[in-house]
Amino acid sequence: MEVYLDNSATTKPTPEVIMAINRAYTEYYGNPSSLHRKGLEAERVLFQARREIASAIGAAPEEFLFTSGGTESNNLAILGFLKRSRHLNKLIATTKIEHPSVLNVFKKLESDGFEVAFLNVDSSGVVNLDEVKAVLDKEPVLLSVMMVNNETGALQPIAEIAQLLRSSGKKTVFHVDAVQAFGKVPFQVNSLNIDLLSISGHKFHGPKGVGALFVKKGVGLEPLFFGGNQEAGLRSGTENLPAILGMNTAAEQTVKSLTEDIAKMRSLKNRLQEEIERNIPDIRINSPSEANCAPHILNVSFLGVKSEILLHTLEQDGIYVSSGSACSSRKRSISHVLQAMGRSEAELDSAVRFSFNRFNESAEIDYVVDRLQNHVAALRKTIMGDRKWKR
Amino acid sequence: MEVYLDNSATTKPTPEVIMAINRAYTEYYGNPSSLHRKGLEAERVLFQARREIASAIGAAPEEFLFTSGGTESNNLAILGFLKRSRHLNKLIATTKIEHPSVLNVFKKLESDGFEVAFLNVDSSGVVNLDEVKAVLDKEPVLLSVMMVNNETGALQPIAEIAQLLRSSGKKTVFHVDAVQAFGKVPFQVNSLNIDLLSISGHKFHGPKGVGALFVKKGVGLEPLFFGGNQEAGLRSGTENLPAILGMNTAAEQTVKSLTEDIAKMRSLKNRLQEEIERNIPDIRINSPSEANCAPHILNVSFLGVKSEILLHTLEQDGIYVSSGSACSSRKRSISHVLQAMGRSEAELDSAVRFSFNRFNESAEIDYVVDRLQNHVAALRKTIMGDRKWKR
Repeated sequence: MEVYLDNSATTKPTPEVIMAINRAYTEYYGNPSSLHRKGLEAERVLFQARREIASAIGAAPEEFLFTSGGTESNNLAILGFLKRSRHLNKLIATTKIEHPSVLNVFKKLESDGFEVAFLNVDSSGVVNLDEVKAVLDKEPVLLSVMMVNNETGALQPIAEIAQLLRSSGKKTVFHVDAVQAFGKVPFQVNSLNIDLLSISGHKFHGPKGVGALFVKKGVGLEPLFFGGNQEAGLRSGTENLPAILGMNTAAEQTVKSLTEDIAKMRSLKNRLQEEIERNIPDIRINSPSEANCAPHILNVSFLGVKSEILLHTLEQDGIYVSSGSACSSRKRSISHVLQAMGRSEAELDSAVRFSFNRFNESAEIDYVVDRLQNHVAALRKTIMGDRKWKR
Repeated sequence: MEVYLDNSATTKPTPEVIMAINRAYTEYYGNPSSLHRKGLEAERVLFQARREIASAIGAAPEEFLFTSGGTESNNLAILGFLKRSRHLNKLIATTKIEHPSVLNVFKKLESDGFEVAFLNVDSSGVVNLDEVKAVLDKEPVLLSVMMVNNETGALQPIAEIAQLLRSSGKKTVFHVDAVQAFGKVPFQVNSLNIDLLSISGHKFHGPKGVGALFVKKGVGLEPLFFGGNQEAGLRSGTENLPAILGMNTAAEQTVKSLTEDIAKMRSLKNRLQEEIERNIPDIRINSPSEANCAPHILNVSFLGVKSEILLHTLEQDGIYVSSGSACSSRKRSISHVLQAMGRSEAELDSAVRFSFNRFNESAEIDYVVDRLQNHVAALRKTIMGDRKWKR
């Protein structure tokens, strides 16, 4: 049995997405900037896709830019906005648990002279609203908070932060990394006070190499690239129409049965969590409780068992999971997210992320629990002998 | 009959390229940064593709970065190098005929305080070597010259410039935009004194949304994006493996029969040029003569006939050509390339670019000549009545 539970790293595109890509490459291979019919046809389907996928998050097509992925979207949002804004106030804010494509941008900006507030999270991995309020009082130029944490699934209080911002009257621009949220958590940008929001195609069964950035009307950005002035001058380069059409198909499929899919993923996740809690001793659940957690991520520490070893043992049985995030290059690193949550070294060392998609089935979960139970016991026995694991 | 002669704007991917993309999406959909087998498999084929395509241009795999396309490659080369270099000398140099993804970067840098030398070209569109020599005497930090001009096909004297640079002993870093050259002009970076070189997948029947940058060992760049530190830290973001494998297949196919394909494209181009010269009066060939021209681009002014009108008339017959470049967003603009070559307004207004691929056939050329002859005569008659066109 093969069970892919690393969907927060990347998802497998659906057959319909692959068909959309193929169709684009055979029927709409023209350059949307070409003046002839093949260009116009490409431009027409590009506009249609922009309108459709923008509307899936409640944005207008002219507020929706295509990029090469979540990393570029996050970078364009943050760097592009700060390049444009010539504020005297050099304060910018984010949380300690952002994805590297946000966190490392802020670290770079800090080394360039910005004052950066890295907000704390509580032990469940949710950002502290009092800290948000305190930093907003200083009116930072930019605040960036992710909607769903990629390692734990912790839902961040985006609506509450947006409300705080609105009622504060501050001019802080609010960026939301929604890469792990789209297709897992329903949201509409127009009902939230969000200025910039990033998504990535390959996280919801769309193609790799394509993402998007919502830019609210009136929010000025400067491009990271210069060239042919595509995407309203904000993202030069021939439009990647096949990937855009693939992402649009993926978005359409994702939105179609979102409520049922969320319920299904949540039930699988709850089942896995309950079975682990029931059958495997000495574990710690690192994901927050249901109300504060996305439906597709479960992070668990199996104390005493190094996560890489468990990961490789599970893959022998065709089970694919992750040790922490897998979105950064292959170097061994301690999770900054679990660290920010105050987890112990033993918990950090043994954390495994299970991330679901809407196609997973409960039989897969039963299989995973069975294998987990065996492997964790066996590995613990090898390492510890008959001693009992102590935290 | 459908004749696509806009291959410098974009090419149609081959069936094998589409198969490679599909295969990647079904077999290698894992994230190359994941630690489990699906990640390792993806990383393995990624490395293999990097080695293969790097070797196609004479580069080592560790000198070869994947990007989201030609525009990003050019921007990363120029901006990335200048961010890194903290030279006192603020002089940088390029030509007046570069693609917007180079030219607009230099214009931006000029507005940021760099001193920019925009080198002239002669009436055939080839950069003046004396001007190159003169600017190298001032040891600019960076020199960027394209290998093949995208509007006229003019081959730039890259080997001569590289030789000048080598013999001058100057430390100027040399970037070459080879987006229009790969697959049309044989070259090997290791036999030339080139530091940075850009290519783009969709210009040689590969996928859109993927390109590469050769970075010679020892040349330091700073990334444009921050995040997961993929591509040796120079290009964060989940690797676009399907597009990379597609581009690798395209490169393999392109290199396989390069000599024959070049000969074939050149013969089609010569045939088109000769037939136009023989059958249509009052034209001007804007592409240089054979020795100085890439095999796949022919730029012709049909005096008195506005290029857009001829373009739309030809598309009624299934013939797709371009008015000047088509790489920038759809706004009416006068060709900066033909302007730099000193063409008259009448020549600028009536310039059409025919760009070939290795799959075009001579019957297509005959058809194009036939339709051109008719349309140009008819359009001229409509506009001019029986007056003769004067330059």
